Amino acid sequence: MAGLPQRGIVVTDHPRADDTVRDGLGGYGVATVHEAQGRTGLMAAGITPAWRGAHISGTAVTVSVAPCDNWMIHVAVEQCRPGDVLVVAPTSPSDAGYFGDLLATSLTARGVRGLVIDAGVRDVADLRTMGFPAWSAVVSAEGTVKETLGSVNVPIVCGGRVVEPGDVIVADDDGVVVVRRAEAAGVLAASEAREEKEARLRERYAAGELGLDVNAMRERLRRAALRYVPYDTYRKERQA
Amino acid sequence: MAGLPQRGIVVTDHPRADDTVRDGLGGYGVATVHEAQGRTGLMAAGITPAWRGAHISGTAVTVSVAPCDNWMIHVAVEQCRPGDVLVVAPTSPSDAGYFGDLLATSLTARGVRGLVIDAGVRDVADLRTMGFPAWSAVVSAEGTVKETLGSVNVPIVCGGRVVEPGDVIVADDDGVVVVRRAEAAGVLAASEAREEKEARLRERYAAGELGLDVNAMRERLRRAALRYVPYDTYRKERQA
Amino acid sequence: MAGLPQRGIVVTDHPRADDTVRDGLGGYGVATVHEAQGRTGLMAAGITPAWRGAHISGTAVTVSVAPCDNWMIHVAVEQCRPGDVLVVAPTSPSDAGYFGDLLATSLTARGVRGLVIDAGVRDVADLRTMGFPAWSAVVSAEGTVKETLGSVNVPIVCGGRVVEPGDVIVADDDGVVVVRRAEAAGVLAASEAREEKEARLRERYAAGELGLDVNAMRERLRRAALRYVPYDTYRKERQA
Amino acid sequence: MAGLPQRGIVVTDHPRADDTVRDGLGGYGVATVHEAQGRTGLMAAGITPAWRGAHISGTAVTVSVAPCDNWMIHVAVEQCRPGDVLVVAPTSPSDAGYFGDLLATSLTARGVRGLVIDAGVRDVADLRTMGFPAWSAVVSAEGTVKETLGSVNVPIVCGGRVVEPGDVIVADDDGVVVVRRAEAAGVLAASEAREEKEARLRERYAAGELGLDVNAMRERLRRAALRYVPYDTYRKERQA
Amino acid sequence: MAGLPQRGIVVTDHPRADDTVRDGLGGYGVATVHEAQGRTGLMAAGITPAWRGAHISGTAVTVSVAPCDNWMIHVAVEQCRPGDVLVVAPTSPSDAGYFGDLLATSLTARGVRGLVIDAGVRDVADLRTMGFPAWSAVVSAEGTVKETLGSVNVPIVCGGRVVEPGDVIVADDDGVVVVRRAEAAGVLAASEAREEKEARLRERYAAGELGLDVNAMRERLRRAALRYVPYDTYRKERQA
Amino acid sequence: MAGLPQRGIVVTDHPRADDTVRDGLGGYGVATVHEAQGRTGLMAAGITPAWRGAHISGTAVTVSVAPCDNWMIHVAVEQCRPGDVLVVAPTSPSDAGYFGDLLATSLTARGVRGLVIDAGVRDVADLRTMGFPAWSAVVSAEGTVKETLGSVNVPIVCGGRVVEPGDVIVADDDGVVVVRRAEAAGVLAASEAREEKEARLRERYAAGELGLDVNAMRERLRRAALRYVPYDTYRKERQA
Repeated sequence: MAGLPQRGIVVTDHPRADDTVRDGLGGYGVATVHEAQGRTGLMAAGITPAWRGAHISGTAVTVSVAPCDNWMIHVAVEQCRPGDVLVVAPTSPSDAGYFGDLLATSLTARGVRGLVIDAGVRDVADLRTMGFPAWSAVVSAEGTVKETLGSVNVPIVCGGRVVEPGDVIVADDDGVVVVRRAEAAGVLAASEAREEKEARLRERYAAGELGLDVNAMRERLRRAALRYVPYDTYRKERQA
Repeated sequence: MAGLPQRGIVVTDHPRADDTVRDGLGGYGVATVHEAQGRTGLMAAGITPAWRGAHISGTAVTVSVAPCDNWMIHVAVEQCRPGDVLVVAPTSPSDAGYFGDLLATSLTARGVRGLVIDAGVRDVADLRTMGFPAWSAVVSAEGTVKETLGSVNVPIVCGGRVVEPGDVIVADDDGVVVVRRAEAAGVLAASEAREEKEARLRERYAAGELGLDVNAMRERLRRAALRYVPYDTYRKERQA
Repeated sequence: MAGLPQRGIVVTDHPRADDTVRDGLGGYGVATVHEAQGRTGLMAAGITPAWRGAHISGTAVTVSVAPCDNWMIHVAVEQCRPGDVLVVAPTSPSDAGYFGDLLATSLTARGVRGLVIDAGVRDVADLRTMGFPAWSAVVSAEGTVKETLGSVNVPIVCGGRVVEPGDVIVADDDGVVVVRRAEAAGVLAASEAREEKEARLRERYAAGELGLDVNAMRERLRRAALRYVPYDTYRKERQA
Repeated sequence: MAGLPQRGIVVTDHPRADDTVRDGLGGYGVATVHEAQGRTGLMAAGITPAWRGAHISGTAVTVSVAPCDNWMIHVAVEQCRPGDVLVVAPTSPSDAGYFGDLLATSLTARGVRGLVIDAGVRDVADLRTMGFPAWSAVVSAEGTVKETLGSVNVPIVCGGRVVEPGDVIVADDDGVVVVRRAEAAGVLAASEAREEKEARLRERYAAGELGLDVNAMRERLRRAALRYVPYDTYRKERQA
Repeated sequence: MAGLPQRGIVVTDHPRADDTVRDGLGGYGVATVHEAQGRTGLMAAGITPAWRGAHISGTAVTVSVAPCDNWMIHVAVEQCRPGDVLVVAPTSPSDAGYFGDLLATSLTARGVRGLVIDAGVRDVADLRTMGFPAWSAVVSAEGTVKETLGSVNVPIVCGGRVVEPGDVIVADDDGVVVVRRAEAAGVLAASEAREEKEARLRERYAAGELGLDVNAMRERLRRAALRYVPYDTYRKERQA
Repeated sequence: MAGLPQRGIVVTDHPRADDTVRDGLGGYGVATVHEAQGRTGLMAAGITPAWRGAHISGTAVTVSVAPCDNWMIHVAVEQCRPGDVLVVAPTSPSDAGYFGDLLATSLTARGVRGLVIDAGVRDVADLRTMGFPAWSAVVSAEGTVKETLGSVNVPIVCGGRVVEPGDVIVADDDGVVVVRRAEAAGVLAASEAREEKEARLRERYAAGELGLDVNAMRERLRRAALRYVPYDTYRKERQA
């Protein structure tokens, strides 16, 4: 019927963010990139690493799957190129384990850098051994079926954020952030600037300087009427 | 900086779904509309009614707010017309109460039919007394500030679904579903067709007919090798 | 293969708890029945009423369904008799809406008294209007498919408790409790005894008597060294 | 051993907030009182009404109970006076049902106005019928034992907030707020002032005035560089 | 009273699954075993390892404990033999820490391979150092009492699954799966078969073959009308 | 206004628990200290380590921050001395990331031993690399603002427990426990006594002795009517 939403589409040959920009963003943490793009694009805190210590960037290949059905992930593998990250969301919430060591092996062979999924993964001990990074909503050994079509490389919502194919994904132990393809170069520049500034701050903090001085906060605190009270005075006030 | 995401925009005079279509969709439940559009667009089950018994449809005015900040809701009120529904999402998760009886009074005066928010509401006893419907992620009396700009009538993600200004929102005790503006007429027709079919089914079920017969399931179950076993036989098998 | 678990079984003509016992248990609240059977059989607090105010008892017809699949509920309806309660659990966790007003119509026509499901229901406004009671883990308009066999009238786990076909289910606003068929008469007697005792307590409490006296707790508290301290003394001790 | 924390204390004859102040605060909603005292004292949103529609104020009698043990609630009843509210917290988290219709009967006989508990209640249908208000973390029919001492009228943490005996508790459908005894008169005055201001705002909003004008926000928004963009312009910008 | 459920029973000398089968199953991951037995027996995803990297199989000794009471775990230790796994569930939900390094020392001395508990454990740093594996619903330092009887080696529900004494437990970083004693040999054979098949698949995937070809999915996708659309075409369709 | 709660206070020069006592408590695990002080002071199980393996004790510097605002943490750094632990709680729940590697650098420079926060932290990979321990309610890269005053070194509620400045904090992989300053010496002595007793128990358990004998439980179990039933007898009873 005309005017109804479509399923069962695989969009091919989508543009990707520039390789240098993509890799450059991987040099910065999720918190830095998130700040650098004006505090947007951060996925929900519930999307956590299946194992600790990975830090990747890559261009998104998106997969919309039916609940409890991972058929389209197999379809999506063919659309992946080196430097991509697979981003998967079911059309309704489901905690099954859509992805395990076999699919990780297949993606590794294609040069894919990791997986982000708003659902479950399994074989996490194998993923860690293989060094294949994955961020997921849950760990679950529960399998899925291969019965219903979804779509590949259409816009999806994952972890509460829209992901378009070709967007840059940056992920580390803090979580996952999405950078729009068209904004990636700007966000990279802003990340570099931010990191440089933070490196200088880090040095001063390490040397014992206070944030109050380094950030010139004292005058503003004074105007906001912050009051310093010795403990004994405070205690007497409370008992009065 | 060029290439960075924008905030602080109010988009005016956006197109809305047709009035007749919008009101027609309000004649069907969320479950029916969700089915009619191919099981898409349903917000997360965590978005629940602040009070039970409301059932509305309306065209979305969208609001992207900073966390713990409801300034832009005031800005959005001016953009509302009769028949609209206000849809609000913070740029990062926050359970404060962004909306209460004063804003409900203001929206009622403008003919707005309800609120959907991926955060908290307060004054829920007043909302129920006023008959102003609201669906939210939480009830919280915690207030918000008015310090940071957001945007009005840009695409947002609410309850895990993208909402564009002008889309149709249908909400009842089951939750909230979003219908794309361009697909609304088609979804209405499909909802009508589905409801007619269900009305006939309901009649037959009420008369005592079984779903097995009404839906001609017996042959398919037989092919799937469903086995009927008397209790005594089953019990002996288990103890063997 | 021998030695593997079976699916796709419908057990027919299972024994049910005695009608009089079943109906007698419905005269007591979930809390009373739970206490009367030695604090066992209470389902997890997450299984809550879809609407408030219902209070039922019935004999269980059990349904084990595949995740996101409600095919076997249709199969189960045929096995139901007046006085039954349908108890449904998916083989792995899933929050879809497996049950709505059509199935409720069909069950009502067969004299079934309600539904308990460790997953989602939808059309809850209709269920309330029809007066069909349902207890569920979630409310969700998300539909299910009809692709995979499960089983009817095998033992299942629902809300963390084993339910056998023919067991008595008692459910009210506090939740759901399961009473083993073989123990139902004993639990009914214990419930009656408990309720009589509570009625006498209630009268004495309403007349202003204290639980300390009615339950003769004072001596035991004294032996446990409970200490009464006037506020001023306590305050001085704290400041010392 | 000296220097170890104490249990098993009942503090008697603690001072309570003034009756007129206590009752006056009950004339304002939780959101208003919370705002009036500078956004402090609001209990966590997880403490919700067992039934909707109650609105109370009262002076706190506090009870610290051992997990899964309601013995001290019986002890606390004796310390209650008309106008009090019982506030209960277990020393470690537990979702059992510590309180039901019998204790509600006893408290009603003593003029107690309601219960707030950071744990479970049961018999909620009876509580609604009796009109006894209760706010709790969960509804659970699971019973508790009477084995371990706790304390009455010592400071406790309930819903993330410290409650001292004699503090004022205000509770409605939005949740629960605690007002320090020493601050109650000031908070009442501030609530009155706030409500008067809101009444004027409500009138203007109902008449169709906008928050933008009523609160003189336009100039501040302009300075913050809020930008109004017609839909067609915005759409072209996005596609560029 | 006759007909009431029993507590306070220790069942001795229960049969256990065959040693070779038990140990054989430990050679396969939870996901493999779960698939091999037809996707049944997987505990809820909330039961997670106290530390990462353990992988065990063992025969269940079951313990039903009263909430907040670990007395019966001490009783159960005596019933354990080398190769067993202790499986514990409270009769009502409770997050206290029922188990720590002392009990782990005692179980280690008896050759027990690990613990599965639908409640809390503590001393997790010590458990990791000792190499004693544990899967639990939570980590909590909160202690328990020793006041109320439970039972040992009766059927229990743990993580939503029935566990009978003598069943095989397999647990790894993905979670925990239960294999019925009578089905264990069949499940072992099926696991071996599945793993062999997966090993061949893994090799082909590693060599760059696609799941689409290896699993002959292309024809079925074509019949399901999957459509490949170049990005530019798709983009134009969306803007139309 | 008189009688309203105060914000914007920094209490200086508060007394701290004795250095030797503070460091002595760090020699015991959270579970031991919690038991030693009569099972009080344990923070909610939701406060978990950002990385595993840290074990610290320190004296509390407390910070009350506005939601989504970390301004006061900068103020608090200046009040810290070597041996302190920073304890932070927002005045209403918020999961933003209030603390990252820059603040950790600054605290390290001042000799602070770690952070406990009832909200989010970020840069957790850096914190692990730096060896800076942190316990938090969530990990989130979401930033905070610096707009609203809070207070430093006033009593706060963190993880459901009151923390006063100068109290001792002990934290390890099990969680966090608070020891009152005035009780710290007594709790240290009790911890030593408990640990000595446990060391003896551990030795006996390791040698194969049973808790039933070591703790002389058999007689008490017999009086409680614990019944030992051989499996075959039990099975026949169940089938009868």
